Amino acid sequence: MSKGTVVLAYSGGLDTSCILVWLKEEGYDVITYLANIGQEEDFDAAKKKAESLGAKKVFIEDLRAEFVEEFIWPSVQASAIYEDRYLLGTSVARPCIARRQIQIARQEGAQYVSHGATGKGNDQIRFELTCYALYPEVKIIAPWRIPEFYNRFVGRKDLMEYAEKHGIPVPVTRKAPWSMDANLMHISYESGILENPKTHAPADLYLMTKSPEDAPNSPDVLEIEFKKGVPIKVTHIKEGKSKDTPLDIFSYLNEIGGRHGVGRIDIVENRFIGMKSRGIYETPGGTILYHAHLDIETFTLDREVRRIKQGLGVKFAEMLYNGFWYSPECEFVRHCIDKSQESVDGKVQLSVFKGQVYILGRESPKSLYNEELVSMDVQGDYDPCDASGFIKINAVRLREHHRLQGDHRSKH
Amino acid sequence: MSKGTVVLAYSGGLDTSCILVWLKEEGYDVITYLANIGQEEDFDAAKKKAESLGAKKVFIEDLRAEFVEEFIWPSVQASAIYEDRYLLGTSVARPCIARRQIQIARQEGAQYVSHGATGKGNDQIRFELTCYALYPEVKIIAPWRIPEFYNRFVGRKDLMEYAEKHGIPVPVTRKAPWSMDANLMHISYESGILENPKTHAPADLYLMTKSPEDAPNSPDVLEIEFKKGVPIKVTHIKEGKSKDTPLDIFSYLNEIGGRHGVGRIDIVENRFIGMKSRGIYETPGGTILYHAHLDIETFTLDREVRRIKQGLGVKFAEMLYNGFWYSPECEFVRHCIDKSQESVDGKVQLSVFKGQVYILGRESPKSLYNEELVSMDVQGDYDPCDASGFIKINAVRLREHHRLQGDHRSKH
Amino acid sequence: MSKGTVVLAYSGGLDTSCILVWLKEEGYDVITYLANIGQEEDFDAAKKKAESLGAKKVFIEDLRAEFVEEFIWPSVQASAIYEDRYLLGTSVARPCIARRQIQIARQEGAQYVSHGATGKGNDQIRFELTCYALYPEVKIIAPWRIPEFYNRFVGRKDLMEYAEKHGIPVPVTRKAPWSMDANLMHISYESGILENPKTHAPADLYLMTKSPEDAPNSPDVLEIEFKKGVPIKVTHIKEGKSKDTPLDIFSYLNEIGGRHGVGRIDIVENRFIGMKSRGIYETPGGTILYHAHLDIETFTLDREVRRIKQGLGVKFAEMLYNGFWYSPECEFVRHCIDKSQESVDGKVQLSVFKGQVYILGRESPKSLYNEELVSMDVQGDYDPCDASGFIKINAVRLREHHRLQGDHRSKH
Amino acid sequence: MSKGTVVLAYSGGLDTSCILVWLKEEGYDVITYLANIGQEEDFDAAKKKAESLGAKKVFIEDLRAEFVEEFIWPSVQASAIYEDRYLLGTSVARPCIARRQIQIARQEGAQYVSHGATGKGNDQIRFELTCYALYPEVKIIAPWRIPEFYNRFVGRKDLMEYAEKHGIPVPVTRKAPWSMDANLMHISYESGILENPKTHAPADLYLMTKSPEDAPNSPDVLEIEFKKGVPIKVTHIKEGKSKDTPLDIFSYLNEIGGRHGVGRIDIVENRFIGMKSRGIYETPGGTILYHAHLDIETFTLDREVRRIKQGLGVKFAEMLYNGFWYSPECEFVRHCIDKSQESVDGKVQLSVFKGQVYILGRESPKSLYNEELVSMDVQGDYDPCDASGFIKINAVRLREHHRLQGDHRSKH
Repeated sequence: MSKGTVVLAYSGGLDTSCILVWLKEEGYDVITYLANIGQEEDFDAAKKKAESLGAKKVFIEDLRAEFVEEFIWPSVQASAIYEDRYLLGTSVARPCIARRQIQIARQEGAQYVSHGATGKGNDQIRFELTCYALYPEVKIIAPWRIPEFYNRFVGRKDLMEYAEKHGIPVPVTRKAPWSMDANLMHISYESGILENPKTHAPADLYLMTKSPEDAPNSPDVLEIEFKKGVPIKVTHIKEGKSKDTPLDIFSYLNEIGGRHGVGRIDIVENRFIGMKSRGIYETPGGTILYHAHLDIETFTLDREVRRIKQGLGVKFAEMLYNGFWYSPECEFVRHCIDKSQESVDGKVQLSVFKGQVYILGRESPKSLYNEELVSMDVQGDYDPCDASGFIKINAVRLREHHRLQGDHRSKH
Repeated sequence: MSKGTVVLAYSGGLDTSCILVWLKEEGYDVITYLANIGQEEDFDAAKKKAESLGAKKVFIEDLRAEFVEEFIWPSVQASAIYEDRYLLGTSVARPCIARRQIQIARQEGAQYVSHGATGKGNDQIRFELTCYALYPEVKIIAPWRIPEFYNRFVGRKDLMEYAEKHGIPVPVTRKAPWSMDANLMHISYESGILENPKTHAPADLYLMTKSPEDAPNSPDVLEIEFKKGVPIKVTHIKEGKSKDTPLDIFSYLNEIGGRHGVGRIDIVENRFIGMKSRGIYETPGGTILYHAHLDIETFTLDREVRRIKQGLGVKFAEMLYNGFWYSPECEFVRHCIDKSQESVDGKVQLSVFKGQVYILGRESPKSLYNEELVSMDVQGDYDPCDASGFIKINAVRLREHHRLQGDHRSKH
Repeated sequence: MSKGTVVLAYSGGLDTSCILVWLKEEGYDVITYLANIGQEEDFDAAKKKAESLGAKKVFIEDLRAEFVEEFIWPSVQASAIYEDRYLLGTSVARPCIARRQIQIARQEGAQYVSHGATGKGNDQIRFELTCYALYPEVKIIAPWRIPEFYNRFVGRKDLMEYAEKHGIPVPVTRKAPWSMDANLMHISYESGILENPKTHAPADLYLMTKSPEDAPNSPDVLEIEFKKGVPIKVTHIKEGKSKDTPLDIFSYLNEIGGRHGVGRIDIVENRFIGMKSRGIYETPGGTILYHAHLDIETFTLDREVRRIKQGLGVKFAEMLYNGFWYSPECEFVRHCIDKSQESVDGKVQLSVFKGQVYILGRESPKSLYNEELVSMDVQGDYDPCDASGFIKINAVRLREHHRLQGDHRSKH
Repeated sequence: MSKGTVVLAYSGGLDTSCILVWLKEEGYDVITYLANIGQEEDFDAAKKKAESLGAKKVFIEDLRAEFVEEFIWPSVQASAIYEDRYLLGTSVARPCIARRQIQIARQEGAQYVSHGATGKGNDQIRFELTCYALYPEVKIIAPWRIPEFYNRFVGRKDLMEYAEKHGIPVPVTRKAPWSMDANLMHISYESGILENPKTHAPADLYLMTKSPEDAPNSPDVLEIEFKKGVPIKVTHIKEGKSKDTPLDIFSYLNEIGGRHGVGRIDIVENRFIGMKSRGIYETPGGTILYHAHLDIETFTLDREVRRIKQGLGVKFAEMLYNGFWYSPECEFVRHCIDKSQESVDGKVQLSVFKGQVYILGRESPKSLYNEELVSMDVQGDYDPCDASGFIKINAVRLREHHRLQGDHRSKH
């Protein structure tokens, strides 16, 4: 008799194929689920493979549009960046993938979900917190945290042997000496030879971006139009080409950014579980958007609103990184950030060249920029004398502090 | 009889030369003071000019070394960046310049200081808060905020006429259609044709950095060594060349960064007085250091210490921008940030190329990075089962929240 | 010919009566405006006095209901408290009063507004920022900042003489040796003999609360019901009496709190203009609400939402204190805080006795409190083993830190 | 053969006595350790009991002085308060107790430590994080999280039976229908009948404070002197009595506060593990100190330093509550807070009466309070005209915002 039904997040690779078979061995009915979030993948082949390995049902789900609109766009609004550098390409995909997995589990009456994430990483947390948040009674099978599993499969060799024994097709190409994770937003590389933080990344590692050294010798100039902090149109100035649906916009920015080698970073970051890890990321379109959004936001938002929103954005990035997308606090913060973006409308012109994004100019119907007020040539509605009082009053505290210091100095 | 002595921050240019003469006309004895903080300038010519215009005394002060050590270094430690983009090159110079001006005023028995900063900008505030903080009884003459002055000198033409009339040498080259401010850390450009935020900056504007398009086709690879969050050595890997005094290190980074077009930004920012202004900045060495420091810091600092320090850094940047370097809160924050950097030691390797800085690797005797702990290949001192409990406990709140939402949904 | 029309915030007292006459002397038409925000006042007498002194028009406006609903309630939601102690009773009244003043000015076509606030205080800022925010072109006449005025009226004697000369009725009772400001929310006392921060407040100073020593010897027990963070009903448990409109609720809490001497504080605070001042406040109803709201909020809000909201509340209190109620950032923060209160529903029982408020119990249909989950007697949906993993993972960082410290210690 | 040596945090009560015997049964050598942190306890009896139950060694350690100086004092400096109400009396004792436990474990060569904290509470975390931080290799035995233990001892009856069987003296008095934790700083009450958050606490629950209703009818007036944010002397004004060592000061404040019923709170709080729990606390001396310190701090600290320090204090309170006293971030924050207190010197006079603390006045040689500057009667070194400019400049943003809003309103 079956122990119950598991919805397994299945990638088609060696690990999750072994997990599929192992779960069956353990007595579960297995439904596989593979999300298309923009990674390069032969989805048909993966479907057939899962079926051939005994999956009761196979779901291949194209989540690309919702990934962009419901997950990437709020991150753009938030200027979400972890530890000042990482644009959270993996983190933002996890709740999107797990949400659909939970929908399938509920719809198929499955009590279990399973995934192939390791026991030292962030992804296990991001997946599972989403699952518990959306389906509190769900039971999660994380084989890489189950001693019987991880003691049995200590190295890749063990998986290969198991695969051979159970008729799981074994990859013929040699595995890269690192692991990677790809989606529409980015590719990440870590582990293996990259674990030594001093080792430079090999030149042939990057798949999504060209090397800046090999990138075109002239820039592409784009205009990105925002509405409520979200891009609604991108236009290639010279070519006149433009895109205006979320998925098209983001894909096109990936294309341009990728061509110019934009968005490569090599960092050491702090995982939620408390260890430092080294990761290499390429986020071409996301990087362009980060810069463009920052520019239009500063142009249109009041200084103090932006300051508060900036603090919320830092918190949002931590929540996202740690896997709390579906949490009361993240819902609250997303609401607040969305509110802050009400007037973030306008167009940014920028140039993309050799790994870099250069803002060239901006305009907005809602800008708080007042050319007359700020002008050095005309006075506008501004009396320079007021600045004297402003400075004097701001100095009150400083002068008192000095007076007291002086008092003390002279007494001692 | 003299109204008293004024120490005037003198640049040698048309504006402050007119101010010098005007102050004399108004009945003051004028001492001029020109700080060398790394700008391109003919200091001898400026000295002669001031003397010829009737300055009672002329001070030319080389502040470059203290500018780097006492002002730029703490900003590097703080990762000081204003509104996520501006590295504060102008802001950080102001307290350095004004401090010396106050020292001269005290030493010369001057009751007044004066400067040529405009009434709409940030610099007037930065100068004057420093003055009031260090010399509470000082009186400040800011001609561009005095109606008799600014109503007399409405445009450049008025200054030119006044100059001619008073034997002030008039510049022969045409003024650029924008204003600029240069020091060792950066050059800023604003006003004039740049006031339209949509107008692209002309290609020939930049003086400190080469255009990325014209930059060398191969990168320079550097190793920067940090001690307590401050660079103590930079080495050009291929050429073997190295620098190890603060001024040399910073100048060399400017040279390398400048050659590769690093550190150009075009932004709209929020001034302290509440208006938005557009500024274009080039900060070659500072940009390299910002990236290198960020990398070594994340590598060596505990995650939570870094998070708190990051918040302090944001506050520090605001204080710096707004002119509060000499304030009790900024002294306090600098102390705390300095404390946080105690273990920020190590070396970062990076590549500089076509406007961009790429981190390549890092090493440190004090890193909290634990290669064995994080490894995907060995277990280290880590039990993956613990992660299950960690996730379950983190999910307690999320499940409760869902339960309650569900309760409410089902009841309504 | 008239210089124009001024709407003067008029209190009926000596100062603003003199200002009224002085403004007329200066050539203005004067409209007086007196807001009823709950202070003890003979409004009819004030009206007659203004008319007799030549006011062109006299407005007496009862703002008590809107004061409670639109200003006090959001402050309760925010748990607004300045520097950990001050419940902002004066601050919160200012935008309410000035808003109506601006409405009158617009409606009457007045280009000017005027007030009797001093030049060292916070109120001038709170009034004027509200005016500028709501009526950017308005011109403000603040006599206590105009040298011709304040040099003429150096002490109270000068005002008395002026009053006598101009037929302004002179107060017959001796002025208290401090100044006070009263409204529905509180009375504040400052200046005069209170300026010495060491001097104890005299026992007869307080007007709104009984001395705790003279308060009843048995408590009153109340139940306050909240909906979205705002009180909708208060019931006296023993007497069965209840109130359910905002103004009634707040007035009743003042009555009960006042009877028991609740809400007296004696503090030194930091003014926006940078000086420290000493203030004594009594806020009976507001203090009860502060405690009750805090209790129901912690009971119903998710921990992390509350934490973020707490940070926003601190910012809100600063904005309120500094006069920025009508600012983009304060509107934004009020929106966010209001959003956070969506589930803050429920009832709090509390006892009021001898100057203190004691929370006794609480209940809510939306509480996240789960009696079974937290119980020490039943296990609920909780596996204690999970806590081990939770702790171990939280210790990862700490152990690494210790390891490194140890490494260093042993090496040095 | 022994499995090794365990240092057991032993209270002398039923639970830890059973744990002692159970650990022996399981094959461990058991050393018991009982910290005197000011709780009422017959330490001699506990010693004899532990010996009679087979403890290999018994440590009774008087930690009261270090508890006050090294743990309570920094919390006073920080104004540490959790969720705006809880003064952290339990939290602050845990690292103090566990530190000594670890010292004993190291000194006695024990590989294990054990405690009787439950699996749902905060204390397990506070104990264990301290242990892991100070002795990373230690192994922790938490019986209430071990299924064999907690399934065997489901209710108190099971413990009683086990006790009888193993010769453990059984308490003769009936257990209170709640659990409590006492130390020098406070007593906490929770669980049992208190788990219903609506139930009022019984009048006879409190042991450390008198009921305000039964408290004396006249206040005690104290003067507390601070040096660097820490009390160095307390004087009873009328009686002339004073105390000047940390332990004496704190004990005396407990006595006075206890007599007047000061420091009782009934709250629902958020545990680190994500559940809400109800706790009742009495913290007499700590509450007096909290108020007194707040007063002297606001009197002496610069406004902006205090604001930053306040934010650090909130973080510190969370760390303390969650068990992170011995963490890099808490060490860092303690350092910063300590730095902030350098000038927090002075005397506060206060009255303690019927459950409440009233600040009466304060004085300090280092105060930033400037009586002349703030005076309404003399002008001091202050020009009221400056305030006009200050306000006008602060209004620039607000007027721009309104202008834009108006623009939009009129266009739509």
